[in-house]
Amino acid sequence: MTLKVPLSPLQKILLTTDGSVTRILEAIRGREIFVETEKQKIIKADKKIAGLLKIKEGDKVNYRAVNLRDLSGVLIHAISYAPLKRLRKEFREDVMKRDVPIGKILAKLKLEARREIKNFGSMKADKKLSTLFGIPVNALLLKRNYNIIHNNEILLNVTEVFPYEFFR
Amino acid sequence: MTLKVPLSPLQKILLTTDGSVTRILEAIRGREIFVETEKQKIIKADKKIAGLLKIKEGDKVNYRAVNLRDLSGVLIHAISYAPLKRLRKEFREDVMKRDVPIGKILAKLKLEARREIKNFGSMKADKKLSTLFGIPVNALLLKRNYNIIHNNEILLNVTEVFPYEFFR
Repeated sequence: MTLKVPLSPLQKILLTTDGSVTRILEAIRGREIFVETEKQKIIKADKKIAGLLKIKEGDKVNYRAVNLRDLSGVLIHAISYAPLKRLRKEFREDVMKRDVPIGKILAKLKLEARREIKNFGSMKADKKLSTLFGIPVNALLLKRNYNIIHNNEILLNVTEVFPYEFFR
Repeated sequence: MTLKVPLSPLQKILLTTDGSVTRILEAIRGREIFVETEKQKIIKADKKIAGLLKIKEGDKVNYRAVNLRDLSGVLIHAISYAPLKRLRKEFREDVMKRDVPIGKILAKLKLEARREIKNFGSMKADKKLSTLFGIPVNALLLKRNYNIIHNNEILLNVTEVFPYEFFR
């Protein structure tokens, strides 16, 4: 862990696990976690996203921004990029049309995959994230980025963000 | 959760995660977790084990009993059964000859897999486990059983046990 702030065990688990984060949130909260899709659209990969996903510039990518939440509010904000050509039909339908967490899609489709944690760090809350989480502007957030790999190719690149004051 | 005793968030995470348990222990403890191999041998599947792994009676199976520990003591005791014919060479070497946690073997070999949690529950410590964990005989233990699935076949069946008084 290279962060300059002390982390709680739960925060360390959320930043380093290679399992489903929704499952962990459900264990912590003891109740079902819901996905609320904030934005979902098909985009064409620019240079940065093409590099991230190891695809060609201009390839179609599904962009999804969601909130993982329970009744008390939003716990984690997650952004994912998925190359359309690598998503089989059922996966594509679930990730594009339904409010289903990625981990549950993988489990439902019995997809064998692995999560490769690329990095984690911190950032400050902008106005949008401060409103979303109900925290002050500039409050500290923790974030991480990982790939979900299937057939030796990147199926999804995911960034997860949550307030430093959560899960302490 | 169907256990009759209240569980802490960390205990619920350890019983329900579909990620690497060693990784979670390292996050909780903030230091490296070691595997201590207690017993490892090749056995022939009896009826029960054949049913568990969906193989034929008499097929060769690697049996491994290990302790996941840090310098303070044993945290989790784990028993696994793996059909030899489904283990590729490198996996076989690591699981049979070296003190490496399963999750680290999977990551190192970049194996795509999924963990299917079959059940969890409680049991009482016998003399051996009470000595191992440094707890009284008959103290409550939590346990779970899961399959690690690769190529749609059971690569390993794993049982993990830890004292109820740990991770509270």
